[in-house]
Amino acid sequence: MTILNVRLKPEPPKEFPIYIGLGDTLTAMTLIKKHYNGKQIVVITDRNVAKLYGDKLKNYLEIDGFNVLFLTVNSGESAKSTLVKEKLELQMLEQKIDRHALILAFGGGVIGDLAGFVASTYMRGIKYIQLPTTLLAMIDSSVGGKTAINTKLGKNLIGSFYQPLAVIMDLTYLNSLSKKMRINGLIEAIKIFLTSDRDSFYFLRDNLDKVLKLDGDAIKLVIEKAVKLKVQVVEEDEKEQNLRMILNFGHTIGHAIEKLEKYKILHGYAVALGILVEVKIAHLMKKLNENDVNIIFDFFKKLNITTKRLRTLNKEDIALATIGDKKNKQGEISCILLKNIGKVALENGMVATQISHSVIVDSLKKIIEK
Amino acid sequence: MTILNVRLKPEPPKEFPIYIGLGDTLTAMTLIKKHYNGKQIVVITDRNVAKLYGDKLKNYLEIDGFNVLFLTVNSGESAKSTLVKEKLELQMLEQKIDRHALILAFGGGVIGDLAGFVASTYMRGIKYIQLPTTLLAMIDSSVGGKTAINTKLGKNLIGSFYQPLAVIMDLTYLNSLSKKMRINGLIEAIKIFLTSDRDSFYFLRDNLDKVLKLDGDAIKLVIEKAVKLKVQVVEEDEKEQNLRMILNFGHTIGHAIEKLEKYKILHGYAVALGILVEVKIAHLMKKLNENDVNIIFDFFKKLNITTKRLRTLNKEDIALATIGDKKNKQGEISCILLKNIGKVALENGMVATQISHSVIVDSLKKIIEK
Repeated sequence: MTILNVRLKPEPPKEFPIYIGLGDTLTAMTLIKKHYNGKQIVVITDRNVAKLYGDKLKNYLEIDGFNVLFLTVNSGESAKSTLVKEKLELQMLEQKIDRHALILAFGGGVIGDLAGFVASTYMRGIKYIQLPTTLLAMIDSSVGGKTAINTKLGKNLIGSFYQPLAVIMDLTYLNSLSKKMRINGLIEAIKIFLTSDRDSFYFLRDNLDKVLKLDGDAIKLVIEKAVKLKVQVVEEDEKEQNLRMILNFGHTIGHAIEKLEKYKILHGYAVALGILVEVKIAHLMKKLNENDVNIIFDFFKKLNITTKRLRTLNKEDIALATIGDKKNKQGEISCILLKNIGKVALENGMVATQISHSVIVDSLKKIIEK
Repeated sequence: MTILNVRLKPEPPKEFPIYIGLGDTLTAMTLIKKHYNGKQIVVITDRNVAKLYGDKLKNYLEIDGFNVLFLTVNSGESAKSTLVKEKLELQMLEQKIDRHALILAFGGGVIGDLAGFVASTYMRGIKYIQLPTTLLAMIDSSVGGKTAINTKLGKNLIGSFYQPLAVIMDLTYLNSLSKKMRINGLIEAIKIFLTSDRDSFYFLRDNLDKVLKLDGDAIKLVIEKAVKLKVQVVEEDEKEQNLRMILNFGHTIGHAIEKLEKYKILHGYAVALGILVEVKIAHLMKKLNENDVNIIFDFFKKLNITTKRLRTLNKEDIALATIGDKKNKQGEISCILLKNIGKVALENGMVATQISHSVIVDSLKKIIEK
């Protein structure tokens, strides 16, 4: 037997900047040019964003001398599909887009996930830049390089880890978001504050009205803080071996709720409900004290998010729906449990705790009867 | 404007072994166990291979205590499609295959490309091992981590760079290959010898009968030599920035021929014709002398490969069909040209030369009138 040992050259460390600011101080065009010296840009966006900002962006890019292929998909989670991905690829191929082109992911979380995934497999990978337009995408999905599409058997099950050249967060886009969409995004900030930063949680709680009104300083502070925390986590553990799993707080139950609600519920709202259930589980498992539980439940009440919504769902169904989640190994359910506000309970050095089906059902009973 | 600089931890260098031997000295089961300590294996193969070797492999894996999900696709290039990829993913999801499972790519080049691509995006990437069964897959496609599917607009246009845990080449599988399939695989060895190793080219030429009869030493030597050369190239330039492009020798024209023949022609045979045309182009462009051209054409004649086949194709069509190739940048056609047998002509330090449409047409005229 002959053995040839292949040892590939190590790749240079992946580095990229995240820019946060307002359109007039942060000019996306200058930043795009700084990071990309090619000619061809493929903008991938959805119909809502295209309607609001599409012409303007396209004009600016063309004035700056880029060839622009502007591709629009339907708004909403359904765009994260094999079908839509393939359609985008064929449109790009028909227009002879080569591997030196840049994709601009222009929209919310759905667009970032979809366009990032297209970038990662088009001719085995081309460059892309994230230009998020929603609070959810800024705080969470545009940072970290996770790309994905959904399957009929669950969310984000097919995808890749693929980092952009840059993330450009222009807070002016937030003005067009409804209060509901602002709350939807804010949940991911609350999530990371609850797991990692007690002070920021209380800051957000005490400045909630300002933040929701997009008061310049308050909203920027919350975004910056949340993004910084997420960056620290991703820098430490890009491929989600351990620490990065804390970002799944609220998501084990949250994804199950989304699935049962057939993705008609907004992601943030599903995660918020997931957080409430997982907080209750942590309390039941004697990790988290009652005082912290109450503080968290009270805070969500201010956002008009209570567990009433869960009453229409079957407890067993929720527990069962967690099983297909890709965080789980061979039937066990993996869950992030708080130790206190700002800290996660560790189990054998791991941030995720394995819990049983029955604990989920018990917690749901307690919550719903509360 | 705030700038957060993200700097991800460098990934450990990618290292993996390639094992080459006969089934009795090289026991695939022991090697799989050595590299994978999980329980769940997903075998992806095609109907031909399944019929010949499927039961045996499945039994061995199960005796060794693995849970085996055995997935079969149609034989041939048509399996490298979005549709088949999605079907495999859904079958895996239905069987609750989690991200700790291992995919075994068991078959020829099509299976390696397809199964590797499935592995690279299933739950954002799971482990896989290449177990090639054809000469083509051993010599070329199982080495280097290129995975892909085809689109109706061209071959291998969607895919990824994704390295396996190991490549296990058991030469006993070659016995079931027809002479045509042996030649089909050998072309990729001829290709790399012509670009990088004069001595091996002459060794192969002078031992062609032995090699085609799978004489133990001769065939092993050719495979080892070709794989070693490919490994050196991939180690130096995994992502095909420059050097790795030499592996595309014969492929610019070869891919165009495959496309025009609607993939009914075997890959190796298309590349062989591509090599002949590209050799002629190199001669026309005064890079390669006539003596070497004749040696190469004479050698291919021994394999019964001549340019007669090209007469049924339109010269303009071939030239046009090269334009969609992903190696090309903004309309120019990128081509690997020989300087002499065993060496590639450089252009400004790059191994690929930009050529014009008309040079291709002229070369085709010369060849066909020859």
